Amino acid sequence: MEPDLAFAVWTSERQQRIEHVLDRSLARIDGGPPALIEAMRYAVLGGGKRVRPLLAYAAGELADADPAIVDAPAAAVEMIHAYSLVHDDLPCMDDDVLRRGKPTCHIAFGEAMALLAGDALQAQAFAVLHSARLPDPRSTCLMLAEAAGASGMAGGQAIDLLHVGKAMSMADLEDMHLRKTGALIRAAIRMGAACGSPVDEDALDRYARATGLAFQVVDDVLDVEGSSATLGKTAGKDAAQNKPTYVTLLGLAEAKRHAESLREEARDALGVFGPRARRLLEITDWIVQRAN
Amino acid sequence: MEPDLAFAVWTSERQQRIEHVLDRSLARIDGGPPALIEAMRYAVLGGGKRVRPLLAYAAGELADADPAIVDAPAAAVEMIHAYSLVHDDLPCMDDDVLRRGKPTCHIAFGEAMALLAGDALQAQAFAVLHSARLPDPRSTCLMLAEAAGASGMAGGQAIDLLHVGKAMSMADLEDMHLRKTGALIRAAIRMGAACGSPVDEDALDRYARATGLAFQVVDDVLDVEGSSATLGKTAGKDAAQNKPTYVTLLGLAEAKRHAESLREEARDALGVFGPRARRLLEITDWIVQRAN
Repeated sequence: MEPDLAFAVWTSERQQRIEHVLDRSLARIDGGPPALIEAMRYAVLGGGKRVRPLLAYAAGELADADPAIVDAPAAAVEMIHAYSLVHDDLPCMDDDVLRRGKPTCHIAFGEAMALLAGDALQAQAFAVLHSARLPDPRSTCLMLAEAAGASGMAGGQAIDLLHVGKAMSMADLEDMHLRKTGALIRAAIRMGAACGSPVDEDALDRYARATGLAFQVVDDVLDVEGSSATLGKTAGKDAAQNKPTYVTLLGLAEAKRHAESLREEARDALGVFGPRARRLLEITDWIVQRAN
Repeated sequence: MEPDLAFAVWTSERQQRIEHVLDRSLARIDGGPPALIEAMRYAVLGGGKRVRPLLAYAAGELADADPAIVDAPAAAVEMIHAYSLVHDDLPCMDDDVLRRGKPTCHIAFGEAMALLAGDALQAQAFAVLHSARLPDPRSTCLMLAEAAGASGMAGGQAIDLLHVGKAMSMADLEDMHLRKTGALIRAAIRMGAACGSPVDEDALDRYARATGLAFQVVDDVLDVEGSSATLGKTAGKDAAQNKPTYVTLLGLAEAKRHAESLREEARDALGVFGPRARRLLEITDWIVQRAN
């Protein structure tokens, strides 16, 4: 860890690093058809805040891991995230045309190719996960698979789907988001830490839970307050699709207070780690304060 | 290996075994939404010849592997196969309504849920792969990921998509099928063997290549000669969709001769293994002689 480096510089360096890792991982697919690889690259490269890779690197720093090993899970988790956006934007799901300020993958490449690009990105995530010699490949692979699957992200999306136009309790909304976005955020943090020395896993899990939920609460607030131009994706989508959100359940002001209280929870959880947890703390602050 | 057991009995025992493994693997998804898990179970259980798991068990027997370890890759490869069928049947792909004699997953559960069920099955495949203590989890995971991804199955499907209504040379058709169906068949065989003692990988690869291609040639023949009732899926689909096949390229009689010559190639490749390769040989015979 470089303690005097400003967060913006730290972030920018790691964003450049992961961009390079992703670019390399998607250039090297032996003999895959160029049109498919182009759609995969379109979905992954040149956009996004790279929140999950940043969390993986920060958790890696906490556990004193070699960043060259963290590259692999950081890239893998971002590929899972990118594939989920591609499938989520398809006409049979959210039917969206704008993502990261560009036409969505199926608008640019057609529905069938976008479907396959998402499928291939999920497989590629598990391939790239093993591009470094992980200390424990079995448990790291399980972390990612469980976070992506039916009890994690895909499960959260199914719950989302089943509740369009329906009322949802705060507990159910929280459960949905802990799966839909929280599971992958938690996996990024756990996989990054698993590249280094053992750390307090319970504390890290409490941090991951609070940060994952804070991310979603802020997302819901921005969907109401932001413009499509700032967000790089269609604003006001939740309301248009009649989806339950933190804002519809709590109101705007209370949702913002909830995000603040989750930030405090995240900060408390990191207390045991001392200054080694600085970057994780800064990422949560950034997530809560962001405008897109 | 039980040398005196008839092939039909061996097959039936392993089909029951894999059904049980798949059932158990899909029952245990912690907290996943029931509707999603139901769609996943619908897509995987109660149907299919289980060719890929059978190949994994047979390759495991060749390498003297514990079947309890082979269960994991056998189930994983079948889940990847099942997810690919769900996505392949979607309206934006082949738009099919019949699979394994039942309505396709999206007909039964809706498009969005079918999409998510396929996505979750792919993740679950990588989770279940680690349900046993594999001798080499890293390389086994890579075998599956590469076979499923852009240079393997998804890549083959993209090539297929790009050639609807277009002419294709015999070499291009072979390359497409080596990816689209061959890659997963090869992975099943390699993963099964990797559960045991080292074997001649080149010979096994030659066997896998010939058997994978034979499977596809016979599929193309059956698409022309079979009925939907016998096949359990829509017959005559390739012609209706104007897709290049072995039958359109070679004619029916020559396609059948080609399947026979691939069977001979597979048999030759297994020569080095002696009687230990009996089940692999019998599976290839069965693939070439099958009626569905």
